Amino acid sequence: MNRIAIYDTTLRDGMQSERVNFSVEDKLKIARRLDEFGVAYIEAGWPGSNPTDTEFFHRVRDIEFKRSKLAAFGSTRRAKLAACDDPLLIKLIEARTPVVTIFGKAWGLHVRDVFRITCEQNLEMIYDSVKFLVDQGKEVIFDAEHFFDGYKSDPIYALETLKRAEAAGASCVSLCETNGGALPSDVFDATAAARRHVGICVGIHAHNDSGLAAADSIAAVQAGATHVQGTMNGLGERCGNADLCTIMPILELKMGLSCVRNGSMKDLTELSRYVDEIANLVPDDRMPFVGISAFTHKAGVHADAVAKNPQTYEHMDPELVGNDRRITVSSYSGASNIVHKAKKYDVDLTKQSPEIKGVLDQVINLEHDGYSFEEAEASFELLLKKSLGLYRKLFDLKGFRVIVEKRGPNEEAITEATLKVAVDGEEAFTVAEGDGPVHALDNALRLALAQFYGKELAKIKLTDFKVRVINTKAATAAKVRTLIETRDHNEVWSTVGVSENIIEASWQALADGVEYGLLKHVREKK
Amino acid sequence: MNRIAIYDTTLRDGMQSERVNFSVEDKLKIARRLDEFGVAYIEAGWPGSNPTDTEFFHRVRDIEFKRSKLAAFGSTRRAKLAACDDPLLIKLIEARTPVVTIFGKAWGLHVRDVFRITCEQNLEMIYDSVKFLVDQGKEVIFDAEHFFDGYKSDPIYALETLKRAEAAGASCVSLCETNGGALPSDVFDATAAARRHVGICVGIHAHNDSGLAAADSIAAVQAGATHVQGTMNGLGERCGNADLCTIMPILELKMGLSCVRNGSMKDLTELSRYVDEIANLVPDDRMPFVGISAFTHKAGVHADAVAKNPQTYEHMDPELVGNDRRITVSSYSGASNIVHKAKKYDVDLTKQSPEIKGVLDQVINLEHDGYSFEEAEASFELLLKKSLGLYRKLFDLKGFRVIVEKRGPNEEAITEATLKVAVDGEEAFTVAEGDGPVHALDNALRLALAQFYGKELAKIKLTDFKVRVINTKAATAAKVRTLIETRDHNEVWSTVGVSENIIEASWQALADGVEYGLLKHVREKK
Repeated sequence: MNRIAIYDTTLRDGMQSERVNFSVEDKLKIARRLDEFGVAYIEAGWPGSNPTDTEFFHRVRDIEFKRSKLAAFGSTRRAKLAACDDPLLIKLIEARTPVVTIFGKAWGLHVRDVFRITCEQNLEMIYDSVKFLVDQGKEVIFDAEHFFDGYKSDPIYALETLKRAEAAGASCVSLCETNGGALPSDVFDATAAARRHVGICVGIHAHNDSGLAAADSIAAVQAGATHVQGTMNGLGERCGNADLCTIMPILELKMGLSCVRNGSMKDLTELSRYVDEIANLVPDDRMPFVGISAFTHKAGVHADAVAKNPQTYEHMDPELVGNDRRITVSSYSGASNIVHKAKKYDVDLTKQSPEIKGVLDQVINLEHDGYSFEEAEASFELLLKKSLGLYRKLFDLKGFRVIVEKRGPNEEAITEATLKVAVDGEEAFTVAEGDGPVHALDNALRLALAQFYGKELAKIKLTDFKVRVINTKAATAAKVRTLIETRDHNEVWSTVGVSENIIEASWQALADGVEYGLLKHVREKK
Repeated sequence: MNRIAIYDTTLRDGMQSERVNFSVEDKLKIARRLDEFGVAYIEAGWPGSNPTDTEFFHRVRDIEFKRSKLAAFGSTRRAKLAACDDPLLIKLIEARTPVVTIFGKAWGLHVRDVFRITCEQNLEMIYDSVKFLVDQGKEVIFDAEHFFDGYKSDPIYALETLKRAEAAGASCVSLCETNGGALPSDVFDATAAARRHVGICVGIHAHNDSGLAAADSIAAVQAGATHVQGTMNGLGERCGNADLCTIMPILELKMGLSCVRNGSMKDLTELSRYVDEIANLVPDDRMPFVGISAFTHKAGVHADAVAKNPQTYEHMDPELVGNDRRITVSSYSGASNIVHKAKKYDVDLTKQSPEIKGVLDQVINLEHDGYSFEEAEASFELLLKKSLGLYRKLFDLKGFRVIVEKRGPNEEAITEATLKVAVDGEEAFTVAEGDGPVHALDNALRLALAQFYGKELAKIKLTDFKVRVINTKAATAAKVRTLIETRDHNEVWSTVGVSENIIEASWQALADGVEYGLLKHVREKK
């Protein structure tokens, strides 16, 4: 099986994302996971460019990588210095990584407009810098920045930059689609030309400005590239870098190439979520392969067909990348989705069972009132359990009162919630403040339930809150739908509430979310 | 210039998105905007499949489309019925659209495992259904579902389905990459084969399960397809449909093809945000071409180079799609907008005026806190008037209190708001009920202001209310942004409020909305 080297630059180019800043600790954690997953290279930073990266390269020496080689990143020498005198090149040596990657210009426009030197001077800078690093015992990768724009405007010069890097001893030339504007067909042609002109490994480094970074990378591999650069979840400046979570499964599962440790592809979804977690980003549900929605079926026709044969509406088995099939429920989706859900509780029903008809009728009525269960699986499961007689009520709401008061134009509004619930006939009456009404209600509910379900409750936390007006014609008297996302250590669930009153709608979703979580733990305890 | 027909299915396939539910009103709004933008076809729903779509096709008859043709969507006849007896086909006729699109199977696996009929029976279903619709005077597009999987397993049969549709009078066969698993190179080959076997227009309909939907669509066009299906912002089931906001600029700006009304590409970013707004989705900052980050440069090497020559790190001019370059440190990009706004009040400023700098600083600070003035021009104009000394304060808030109380599990929550305002030193203290806290506050404010501005106030009414959480990580303690739309007999305006407390945020937007409307009438009276 042919092998493609995966070069992960999450910790360097991924850090250029507008919303991402990794600490040294974050970087060490991610590097360990990437090594475990088995990528060939981990590009971890630009030594000397900032204190985080400098500290990282110092501390990372304590880690023994099993599968990945660590790379330090930098640029070719400055025009006016000899390579051995350039302080940034010296920093690259001092980082003590087995691999050093340096970028240089492959486009005359940059050489003239940014560097303001001659094209020949630029070639000398490439040669000298690579040679200096090779002489110091490094494996050197040359990133040909703007290779594809350069190839378009002057193919002979662009190819010459690669040949100089090869002559100086580089082990690989990586062709950079820096601005992200090239079509896959152009990438294919230029990569094929590069392959004809150099004997060493040719790589691809693409950006997603035209939504084509994955396709550009695949086209390069089809043209003979054997080294692919990218980031986890496509992190990176502007529209991001090529997403390795998309490219790796395509290479292994669709093209029959080998790119990471044998058997680790089934950990891809977990790795993707881990990186988002560390980066403090909410995962994009629609990410190919690893997104929560990637194998979710909504339409009844699809759900029905998938039950008969998954191949009908799935391009691959979700388990191959560690993801799951999900079937959501709505009145559109029909009975088969509900049958599928009931199986989770070991209740064996068919589409014709009267229980299914009863549940479906309830769903249709509630949707008519503005509920939506597609995004609120936990609320649906509570409804289903009630219908199937599997529901055990954990608390009764007796009442609540929320007060929001603003005492002057520049005073902050203060919020207070009082709440009464009963558990097995025993009442709890609590009061709590909060940043807003839902927060105050959540706090009061937790206080009230703490004496009954303290341990289970501590595991559950609210993580998202969404409000949507569902009948805009009635303005402030319109109905609102509130969705609340709750999670514990190993699961996330969503619940829904609908009312003309936003506080009431939020309460419904909040109560369902807490109850679903408690029932889960009560169940698990048994 | 070659022409590609854009077939937008946001309102049908886009609705399959897990998180999207359009009302009839939403669909009508989006259809109007798509017509204005100039796509060739708008596929708007599946008549008879649900009440929303049925009502839509009834109400849409009042709209006269200038540039787009409306399409109703459905499937081939059922196996056991004649086309003229199939109630769903009859519903397609009754929708009274100029175009009807029906999907049929192009993959033997589906014919056998889902339909459980013979391959010849399936071909007859395709022929009969297309013929029936053509005979009724419809322009018919045939969606060959799973064409690419079908072509892989049995190319002769897959192509035969297209030929039957052509023989029955279809004007176009659209090749569907239904499961989203094909590589662009496979799509190219199969599309080229389809072009060789039929004489009518060949289209492409791709899904993004492998992150390749845009690339697949481009590959199909390169192989001769002249009709491209997709959705705004790539809405759609699982990982979404092919994103027209990515594909259209590639076709027009990179491939030199013509696909929408001449001159409308510069409205693309606005259209993309409008659809997200209607769908109540937070726009993805990293979307190619239209995302807020798409042309954003972090300070440093890139920002510097872009200042010297934008071409160095931008694949195209952002203005071509109505987007902006953003440089995250020193943003003076908004200055010209502010100069433009100031002209409305006969205030003549230049980008260098100190007033402009002051307003811009305020906008930057407020945006940092989560405000967004793009959708809230009225709030921005109040801010501008304050800075230019043109603002006349109409009322001062002294304070408010909102109480929401629920007295039992099945009781409806009741809401009461008390509010104190002062107008020229004279106080008004009122109390009102409402369907929810914002409605109660609105009622109390109107009561309080009635004695001062009764006549002007009567003309103003709230018409829309939206809430969005802007920092989902903090859950219920996260900040919310409230947008309120207010209108009088001849104008609509939007205002914004931001706070951790939803009531406070709503109050800000509500007060701005009423004040903007009153100021307008006070001005008009003079």
